[in-house]
Amino acid sequence: MTDHPPAEVASPRRVVVVGTGMIGTSVALALRERGAEVWLADRDPAAARLAADIGAGTLLPGGLGPGGRPGQDQPEGPADLALLAVPPAAVAPTLAEAQARNLARWYTDVASVKGFPLAQARALGCDLASFVAAHPLSGRERSGPAAARADLFLGRPWVICPEADNPEAAVAAVTGLARACGAEPVLVSAAQHDRWVALVSHAPHVVSAAMAARLADSSDGALALAGQGLRDVTRIAAGDSALWTQILAANAAPVAEVLAAVAADLAAAAEDLAGAAAAEASLGLGDPGAALKVLAALLDQGSAGVARIPGKRGTPARGDAVVQVVIPDVPGELARLFDAAGQAGVNIEDIGIEHSPGLPVGVAELTVRPEAVARLTEALAAGGWPVRG
Amino acid sequence: MTDHPPAEVASPRRVVVVGTGMIGTSVALALRERGAEVWLADRDPAAARLAADIGAGTLLPGGLGPGGRPGQDQPEGPADLALLAVPPAAVAPTLAEAQARNLARWYTDVASVKGFPLAQARALGCDLASFVAAHPLSGRERSGPAAARADLFLGRPWVICPEADNPEAAVAAVTGLARACGAEPVLVSAAQHDRWVALVSHAPHVVSAAMAARLADSSDGALALAGQGLRDVTRIAAGDSALWTQILAANAAPVAEVLAAVAADLAAAAEDLAGAAAAEASLGLGDPGAALKVLAALLDQGSAGVARIPGKRGTPARGDAVVQVVIPDVPGELARLFDAAGQAGVNIEDIGIEHSPGLPVGVAELTVRPEAVARLTEALAAGGWPVRG
Repeated sequence: MTDHPPAEVASPRRVVVVGTGMIGTSVALALRERGAEVWLADRDPAAARLAADIGAGTLLPGGLGPGGRPGQDQPEGPADLALLAVPPAAVAPTLAEAQARNLARWYTDVASVKGFPLAQARALGCDLASFVAAHPLSGRERSGPAAARADLFLGRPWVICPEADNPEAAVAAVTGLARACGAEPVLVSAAQHDRWVALVSHAPHVVSAAMAARLADSSDGALALAGQGLRDVTRIAAGDSALWTQILAANAAPVAEVLAAVAADLAAAAEDLAGAAAAEASLGLGDPGAALKVLAALLDQGSAGVARIPGKRGTPARGDAVVQVVIPDVPGELARLFDAAGQAGVNIEDIGIEHSPGLPVGVAELTVRPEAVARLTEALAAGGWPVRG
Repeated sequence: MTDHPPAEVASPRRVVVVGTGMIGTSVALALRERGAEVWLADRDPAAARLAADIGAGTLLPGGLGPGGRPGQDQPEGPADLALLAVPPAAVAPTLAEAQARNLARWYTDVASVKGFPLAQARALGCDLASFVAAHPLSGRERSGPAAARADLFLGRPWVICPEADNPEAAVAAVTGLARACGAEPVLVSAAQHDRWVALVSHAPHVVSAAMAARLADSSDGALALAGQGLRDVTRIAAGDSALWTQILAANAAPVAEVLAAVAADLAAAAEDLAGAAAAEASLGLGDPGAALKVLAALLDQGSAGVARIPGKRGTPARGDAVVQVVIPDVPGELARLFDAAGQAGVNIEDIGIEHSPGLPVGVAELTVRPEAVARLTEALAAGGWPVRG
């Protein structure tokens, strides 16, 4: 079902990047670091110029889109590969234009849905043999060339969806691109990919939004009681609604299936609770929760689901330990803290800071490997910090 | 609707804390810091001993529960206040036992639901005049005495729900307790409190679990594509299912109402998407998303809802700016980084670290006030770090 291709594939040497947002520019930066020639184009010329200024490549002469002049001003002969880093609905039209200009030998994209652009490209009469659909997963939610980083894809999956009519050389070129960015190529069908991202990315966005939508008309008093849990559940709902509507529409059937299942589970949980509330009102006391079998099963299943998500490093997140340190909220204090950790030879895997609003004090939570807890706790205690391992 | 009492109320001087989990022990530590006398009891004697070892107080002679000996071994005369830091379903039985022993003049609790324990206490024949229901919000999800901190409630809301038969002195004692912990007392009715926490805490837990439940039987391939968004949405679903079932059962009606609304919104979104998928299949191309009015409206409303959640410091979280720095993943590197920030006079409000799995490099995201971005970026660039403001 999933296939990891061999590591020894060649990096493309001459690449056109169409769409210099965060993704396209990050790929361009990674390619430049490996010495590839990169041309940049964007329907917003200022975005392409900014990417060029950052060092992501040189402007594609003539650009692309309405301002482009097919047949001239392009790199001498077609490039090895053209990366179409544009929104899902723009992939097929951009592919048609790029192929009309013979911009490159092979083409690929980065859209977070795969079936839709492929179907659209087929309908537009594009050459599907030279186009290999792909989706690099960066795990970030920024946008624009300024948010780009050459290391954006390091160790992340880069899904590649070869179709039957793609020659081996086309797939190898896209695999080489993924490897050049330090990513892990994963070969699956477009349909499989779309079902996967519906589950782990698209449906969660709508679920987050549906919870957040309840807050839109709520009282300030309720919102003042909000804790980190609510912030986490609703954070991604702050994303760009128009872009997300387009993404969700392009993966409509798989997302609808997941959402319908979540909606049914929530409706059943609500019914279970309403029934318990009615019984409580009529029967008086008793052990609350004893009757809530549907709800309890859902919570258990949710807990089991969370445990299956791989950690940031691909290992279970629960393997790490947390050390809490109370620190004054002043410049230079964290430096002293990290200095003490560094001198004790302890590597901080992650850190969060919780402020105590209104008072000049905070709590740093240092995530470290379990075997380092005692060493770190001792070092910080010796440095005079109140610490709890 | 909401009332903030005056700041000048006296701290209770002699307090019994029943239940030495994270909440009870944190309150005890805060009281000890202010010089109060504190007695500790827990149905698990080891937990009470651990809390005493941490410095949270002395063991209540005779303990409480089946091992308690009513009428003897208690503090000389009743304490000023007894804090019942036990799970919701245990509040009323514990109150009955504490009142039978005449442990204190006034009683309060910390349960995250208020109507249920009040009704249960009434049914058990407790003296409701001396019991003031309350709920301190710590914003944390740890448990056990070892996770306790004297500053757990600094600047956080402490909801107090006075009933008509509570004398002023009883409410003042609980208000004094909240102030002693550095918290902000908020006076509302029990029913209002329960509706508020249903919205901002209890329903989000079930919504998170319903999304996470979809992952329980999913493929490893799908989970390998998980990003930070999915992790955030599902994080709180990892909580203790049994405790959460009890909490939700005790606030069943208000939670059911929120969940039913979320379920209906998700079902409508699923229907909208399924309709779009069917139309696409029959009509071919077209602008995906153009027809999805229900889904688009939900995403817009979600975005508006997120924007209303106050930030960690009670100010909008969007006021801060983020500076990204690429750092080698070795001990001592963060110390150097913070040292540079400190020397530039920049206070780091928050920090996150993103690792690039498999490679010895990470990206630190430093949250600072917008006016500090230029100063910090310059200082870090001068120190040789790749930085992006």
